[in-house]
Amino acid sequence: MNWIQTNKNFQLPPDGRHLVGVSGGRDSVALLHWLIERGYKNLVVCHLNHQLRGRSSDADARFVSQLPQKYDVHFELGSTDARSIAAKQKISIEAAAREARYKFFARIAKEQRATTIFLGHHADDLVETFLINLFRGAGTGGLGAIREISTRRVDDVDLTIVRPLLAVWRNEINNYVRKHRLKFREDASNKDLGALRNRIRGQIVPYLEKALGRNIRATIWRAAMIAAEEESWIDDQLPNSRGTELEVRRLRELPLALQRREILKWLRGRKMANIGFEVVEQVRSLLDPEARVAKVNLSQDRHVRRRAGKIFIE
Amino acid sequence: MNWIQTNKNFQLPPDGRHLVGVSGGRDSVALLHWLIERGYKNLVVCHLNHQLRGRSSDADARFVSQLPQKYDVHFELGSTDARSIAAKQKISIEAAAREARYKFFARIAKEQRATTIFLGHHADDLVETFLINLFRGAGTGGLGAIREISTRRVDDVDLTIVRPLLAVWRNEINNYVRKHRLKFREDASNKDLGALRNRIRGQIVPYLEKALGRNIRATIWRAAMIAAEEESWIDDQLPNSRGTELEVRRLRELPLALQRREILKWLRGRKMANIGFEVVEQVRSLLDPEARVAKVNLSQDRHVRRRAGKIFIE
Repeated sequence: MNWIQTNKNFQLPPDGRHLVGVSGGRDSVALLHWLIERGYKNLVVCHLNHQLRGRSSDADARFVSQLPQKYDVHFELGSTDARSIAAKQKISIEAAAREARYKFFARIAKEQRATTIFLGHHADDLVETFLINLFRGAGTGGLGAIREISTRRVDDVDLTIVRPLLAVWRNEINNYVRKHRLKFREDASNKDLGALRNRIRGQIVPYLEKALGRNIRATIWRAAMIAAEEESWIDDQLPNSRGTELEVRRLRELPLALQRREILKWLRGRKMANIGFEVVEQVRSLLDPEARVAKVNLSQDRHVRRRAGKIFIE
Repeated sequence: MNWIQTNKNFQLPPDGRHLVGVSGGRDSVALLHWLIERGYKNLVVCHLNHQLRGRSSDADARFVSQLPQKYDVHFELGSTDARSIAAKQKISIEAAAREARYKFFARIAKEQRATTIFLGHHADDLVETFLINLFRGAGTGGLGAIREISTRRVDDVDLTIVRPLLAVWRNEINNYVRKHRLKFREDASNKDLGALRNRIRGQIVPYLEKALGRNIRATIWRAAMIAAEEESWIDDQLPNSRGTELEVRRLRELPLALQRREILKWLRGRKMANIGFEVVEQVRSLLDPEARVAKVNLSQDRHVRRRAGKIFIE
């Protein structure tokens, strides 16, 4: 099994205190075992019970709560009602669960004075997410969805998210789990997946591989990795967009590609989740001097407005 | 029918002399008619007979040769043997035909003192090309394959390639052709398509639309347009790479995303056609101080070598 670190410059000292997100499913159980094997001793296992599958979710939590003893690491358990958050905020259950998870991770990071969290996303996850973004035209406004190393600001905490398994395929993880006789909860993560992801995993990718007779997962993986690096580099070229407002004149002078990224970065910095391409384009249309509309509707009854040469959220 | 110009800053004066590539197929016949309707009078219709379908190819050429009279514009006919070029250069027939076409366009552009050529690529072409690059992992090293406006240096001629129909769908072109009762050669371009493109057009895209129940062509189109703009912007940030050599030390200091683009741009500038991701990555591996191999094989018995801190082709 090859555990490839694509970004060779990134190092995380094994004696530092790091979080690791563990759902109890195959991938995160393998990740935890692998981190321990690599000498990471000072880990905090984080499990959030999304309460999406009743007793089964509780059983996942119980299962994960036993792992820290086995490995002699710290454990943090949280609980949330993802379904009611989704209903309240009018977002998908998948998105609500993700948001709740990051809030939980941020809280634990603060309490534990850690800044890094390991997550178990693997190569097939990357390919599936790429295709979801491509087909849904939503998500990030770009195709480089999951990054090996990324940062995310949640509730004033800067989290560094590290995905060591991003170059490892699902069947390699299967082999790893079998070889080390690791127990895991079969449905722990998969049952909470969105319908689109399940269809892409179960039908679309197998169909494409058969119809095209090639290993398209490898080429999509590569394209996604390149896109992620290019988007990340473009983001680095942007000025810090944590301000409350965007200046219309300055934004207008940027090339189109940068306008989009700047707006996306700004909206995310203003804590607007799940910003899709449509919203970015609508905000961009506010730059047009002849634009009649000076207001863009966001979710949760919030709006982007242009007034006196500034763009802001209210 | 909406003929949308995405790049509003780009203007081409209708009285200037411009080339237009006409295969005789539906798309290019519609393009020619549309350009005439928009007041472009000083056009040079360019048709290259690829000799791929014998008498049928000759009939295409005869058909196209009659259009200039109808519209009172200039006509240039060329001929090439795409199949034997492909065999000689060990490249696909599709690639050989494309290369021969651009060489022909460049020659006519020089003779006619024109710099711009209109081509009939439409929105479905963009989607198909995006998917081909995605699944084959080859092509450009990126996903932004076809651009509305691009430049290409061929035999010391700088061609500006303009694709006014890139936001127009095939069925809109069908309607346009029907409405204006335009005659065209049914198989003129389609029969010369590669097998992969035909499968993507005929099977993959219809399957995806059915399986996902959404207009994925629109979202793929948008993703491809954004990718093209972002890649184009990254390319603009690169230093001019028309030099014969790349300096290892300078290249090493660039971020990964720029190393790739710089190598790609350099290889293209050295007239290496059909550079895929693998070659770019192999050349990039020459930057590694510990690399044992200092030579990368290209097509046509040419090689990239590293010696004395320089990377060059021999």
